[in-house]
Amino acid sequence: MTTPKLQELGAAQAAALLQRRELKAEDLVRACLERVAARNDDIHAFTHVDAVSALAQARALDAGPVRGPLHGLPLGVKDLFDTTDLPTAYGSAVYAHHRPASDAASVTLCREAGAIVLGKTVTTEFAYFTPGPTVNPHNALHTPGGSSSGSAAAVADHMVPLALGTQTAGSIIRPAAYCGVVGYKPSLGRVVHAGVKSLSPTLDVIGGFGRHVEDTALLGAVLTGDLRLLENHVHGTLRIGLFPSPSWDQADADTQKAWEQATNALAKNSDRCQDLDLSRDFGELIQLQKDVMSYEMARSLSFERLRHREALSPALQALLDTGMAISGAQHAANLQRTADWRLRIDALFERHDVLLTPSTTGAAPEGLAATGDPLFCRSWSLLGLPAVHLPLMRNAKGLPVGLQLVGRMGEDHKLLAAARQIHDKLLF
Amino acid sequence: MTTPKLQELGAAQAAALLQRRELKAEDLVRACLERVAARNDDIHAFTHVDAVSALAQARALDAGPVRGPLHGLPLGVKDLFDTTDLPTAYGSAVYAHHRPASDAASVTLCREAGAIVLGKTVTTEFAYFTPGPTVNPHNALHTPGGSSSGSAAAVADHMVPLALGTQTAGSIIRPAAYCGVVGYKPSLGRVVHAGVKSLSPTLDVIGGFGRHVEDTALLGAVLTGDLRLLENHVHGTLRIGLFPSPSWDQADADTQKAWEQATNALAKNSDRCQDLDLSRDFGELIQLQKDVMSYEMARSLSFERLRHREALSPALQALLDTGMAISGAQHAANLQRTADWRLRIDALFERHDVLLTPSTTGAAPEGLAATGDPLFCRSWSLLGLPAVHLPLMRNAKGLPVGLQLVGRMGEDHKLLAAARQIHDKLLF
Repeated sequence: MTTPKLQELGAAQAAALLQRRELKAEDLVRACLERVAARNDDIHAFTHVDAVSALAQARALDAGPVRGPLHGLPLGVKDLFDTTDLPTAYGSAVYAHHRPASDAASVTLCREAGAIVLGKTVTTEFAYFTPGPTVNPHNALHTPGGSSSGSAAAVADHMVPLALGTQTAGSIIRPAAYCGVVGYKPSLGRVVHAGVKSLSPTLDVIGGFGRHVEDTALLGAVLTGDLRLLENHVHGTLRIGLFPSPSWDQADADTQKAWEQATNALAKNSDRCQDLDLSRDFGELIQLQKDVMSYEMARSLSFERLRHREALSPALQALLDTGMAISGAQHAANLQRTADWRLRIDALFERHDVLLTPSTTGAAPEGLAATGDPLFCRSWSLLGLPAVHLPLMRNAKGLPVGLQLVGRMGEDHKLLAAARQIHDKLLF
Repeated sequence: MTTPKLQELGAAQAAALLQRRELKAEDLVRACLERVAARNDDIHAFTHVDAVSALAQARALDAGPVRGPLHGLPLGVKDLFDTTDLPTAYGSAVYAHHRPASDAASVTLCREAGAIVLGKTVTTEFAYFTPGPTVNPHNALHTPGGSSSGSAAAVADHMVPLALGTQTAGSIIRPAAYCGVVGYKPSLGRVVHAGVKSLSPTLDVIGGFGRHVEDTALLGAVLTGDLRLLENHVHGTLRIGLFPSPSWDQADADTQKAWEQATNALAKNSDRCQDLDLSRDFGELIQLQKDVMSYEMARSLSFERLRHREALSPALQALLDTGMAISGAQHAANLQRTADWRLRIDALFERHDVLLTPSTTGAAPEGLAATGDPLFCRSWSLLGLPAVHLPLMRNAKGLPVGLQLVGRMGEDHKLLAAARQIHDKLLF
């Protein structure tokens, strides 16, 4: 076994070394910057990198006291988050030269905890479906997924150990799946969103990417302020609910294989979710998520829709038109139905600690004109439940395949503890 | 009866004249600008007014087709909302020279509906308790309330017929009460908040001020997209629940008098809320609201807290310190308790369409160093229910006194219809 290169260290592992002063932040930053320099022209994960500033921050951290749990860790920041020291374009030409007056609160919380922002990572246009230039690090002809394309690719390609992302439909779990990294979407409402471009307040969630569950738990603890996320202990026997979902017939052979291997390996701790009425009705959540999202995005992006329509992609224009055609009365009914479902789903967690369910229909599709289908994520986004993508295997083309775990509302610490235990068992 | 001056027309009344082309937007804007010129040096409701631009917009609207329900109506915008064409300081020296790259979505929605932004109105520092320069239009030695101080004062003083505000604790209902105007806080989550400074995502709500219920309904219909807000029809007999709340002993003689007169006048349609357990426990919501707000404001204002601490008022610094001392685990429990209460409160609406409850402890307190107590608003803000303040009478000093109506979650149209019917009955 060879010593891993510095840029290949997981965030939690690197953090432990940095805290003990056995690793210098400057060395880690330099290794990451070298990786970016070597690879970013091919992968296009970063839109902007400020090497001089990152190195200066690293030296300052090495010279001072330990700042917090992220002390000295390089961080990629999705370009949907405001930053004062790096351009912030939200993936749109409308904001090509935009420099915000403040950092997003989540970026500041990471900096306060000692993180070093290496640069901004590619987002699709306003976190919707029109891709940026990022390619999948495992195969440049395949999409990295979206909308947090650059963050997932940067972590997968060892450019940074951690990166921030957001999810409204499937923008953390899907790119994590396609790039083969761990993606963590916290419970709705647990991370303040000040300074992140607001798209759909009923759905928007801030989270992030790492290469191990404990890496995302470290980031999550800083974002949510909940130190229980760092605990690595499942109380009692873990009970896993198997929930293939009504969209199961859209899962391809790769996802089916991962499902079969996982459910076999977890047989002792798992059983099929029994609420058949709920499982049957669950399919309606997909259209409901689309309607809530399009209504709210159309209004949230009102300035861009009215003042810069010509600079928006046809796909986004179509979404905004769809959203504006939904009446406020219909939206009110949709929000009520969402609230009803958020109560109803809780029944699944009376018998199970976490649910196992597909992340995506399969591995990253070929082609860079689209970012894949968030089909298996939409419902969980609407329900606001915490979710973790676990990369499990490679398919015949060498592309990553995995599954997601979904936790009970507000029980992110239990989800992450379960995810660690399960991931160790499942790495085939 | 003399013809009212143009600037004294209610928004709905003016809108009808404008739509029928019986009133020119230019004349209305000019009348409002003259009122601002005559009074703003005393009242300090506006921080910035752009007369040239407002008049140009008015002339363009007069020359073109009717744009929408707010066609030609002058609008005041709380300086917590981003505007590209007017400075946006959030009530803080930190942002003294800030000019955002986009308009808040709610501002754009109003402009899309034909509103003319006359200028920005004073907010307290980041919508917390440190006052701006605004005085109460009824008595310059008294506070106008906060945090939407300038918007409430501008509407009360006939500078504009409508103004935008926000509420996190009591920032719409309280200044409406102190200034003697109608304030409308929509149900939580019904108005997208893109481009409004985010303080506490669990609580922040966008709403506004008018001089009549139908004025705020007009604004509300544009903000929420729900045209049912314009309907003026209560189905069946209105059932009003009287809910003095566990804080009743903090209501002074003026509020008690308004309560007595109102409950007498509404005797046939009202009865006391009967759920005694709920009424008793309700008091705990006040501390819960404070804890949720301080936790989230401390994190939302992370950039300002860390980079500009010296520019923050001592009161705000203290709030942020209090908030940072609350753990993420405690906050998670607080959010769960909030969710439980949002379900529990619904029981009150099984027997009643709306609740009548105090807005404030009394009329606007003397002194400009504080903005009064949001005591009677905190619980409703936490619960996310829609609320309307109704001005009802003047006290011995000539200061306005009123009460608020609270509606069921998502039933803003029923609340506003009831508020119109009740207000007509109650104007003593």
